[in-house]
Amino acid sequence: MATLVITRHGESQANRDNIFTGWSDVPLTVAGVEQAQKAAETIKKQNIEFSDVHTSFLQRAIVTSNLICEQLDQLYIPIHKTWRLNERHYGALRGMNKDVAKQKFGVDQVAKWRRGYADLPPMLDTPDHDRRYDELGVQVPLSESLKMTEERLLPYWLDHIAPRLLDGHNQLIVAHGSTLRALVKYLDDIPDDQINTVEIANGEPIKYEFDKHLHIISKRELTN
Amino acid sequence: MATLVITRHGESQANRDNIFTGWSDVPLTVAGVEQAQKAAETIKKQNIEFSDVHTSFLQRAIVTSNLICEQLDQLYIPIHKTWRLNERHYGALRGMNKDVAKQKFGVDQVAKWRRGYADLPPMLDTPDHDRRYDELGVQVPLSESLKMTEERLLPYWLDHIAPRLLDGHNQLIVAHGSTLRALVKYLDDIPDDQINTVEIANGEPIKYEFDKHLHIISKRELTN
Repeated sequence: MATLVITRHGESQANRDNIFTGWSDVPLTVAGVEQAQKAAETIKKQNIEFSDVHTSFLQRAIVTSNLICEQLDQLYIPIHKTWRLNERHYGALRGMNKDVAKQKFGVDQVAKWRRGYADLPPMLDTPDHDRRYDELGVQVPLSESLKMTEERLLPYWLDHIAPRLLDGHNQLIVAHGSTLRALVKYLDDIPDDQINTVEIANGEPIKYEFDKHLHIISKRELTN
Repeated sequence: MATLVITRHGESQANRDNIFTGWSDVPLTVAGVEQAQKAAETIKKQNIEFSDVHTSFLQRAIVTSNLICEQLDQLYIPIHKTWRLNERHYGALRGMNKDVAKQKFGVDQVAKWRRGYADLPPMLDTPDHDRRYDELGVQVPLSESLKMTEERLLPYWLDHIAPRLLDGHNQLIVAHGSTLRALVKYLDDIPDDQINTVEIANGEPIKYEFDKHLHIISKRELTN
């Protein structure tokens, strides 16, 4: 038996300003740091000894991971950073205010891009270049649907998280709204047309317990 | 060609209180956080893109690493944590005030333990148990001389740092007074009877540049 806790990063500057973010590397706000610390206190009450933390290449998730490990007094455990846990890439919506997007594209279309499964936001013309991806030979996407996000996330789950849980090692994932929606869709086997109802709040952890065959024994949202 | 920067953690509570620490996991002081940030600013001016950070299992070094990566805006690079970069184990001196130790054992003896090479501090009767070491099958030492510290540090250097430098990847080590003295002794080929003159200050980085055969091209202490 092993435990998985998943939590979204605290509020970022783009969350606060109601802006599409994706792979843009924006910092936490002061409120976001407080949310991370609150999430850490919530997780701490569970008395879980984690063996690994998995997070993205984006500072809002990494700083949240660091704050959680510090509060848990488990700074010594490895924090694995991977682009596969990055937020979904919002393509040409990146940097756009969500209300502006609604005016431009319509409320229904924006809702589909934000909460639908296969709906692909408008694509960038050319991919961004950034050392952290270029060094690994990873081409930054021009845009990603939730489905595409799930497809690039699953190899990491299957190769690096599931085997550790199967070996009985408790795991913590600190990631983003869309990557965690994609993971929850996969773990809870949510149909494509129902994923639009799933929301992951900043800094509210979810705890899964698995049996030795990696079947879910229990799932619950943790509250302070 | 590749660059290595080594830096000691900022002042810890035990540094401040003049207490032998070793593997005890004490936090940074407020002054220590400021030293870490100062070291980060100093390193930042070098405009180095690091590929890896290596640090110990001890929070004073890990928090210093996190602060440096944050200031460098390079949070996404992997921070590898290893017990092999832990501070030297001070055995039965651990937790003892250094002035009390001088009264008890004499100034000369304490100086040998602190700055000598093969001098072994008094040993603990039984090893400590701590999840972070037990899970890896690492037996916590009963005491360590600087020589023993160098011997357990070198496999990590040879296996995980030197090959990365040989491949041209810039490396950052954030560690402890004795582990960095041991490393500098090895890199600079300092004779056993001269290592007592080498000091590594909290938060004052040293920069090495290596050629493609890992010979030292330059070494200098970085100042703001």
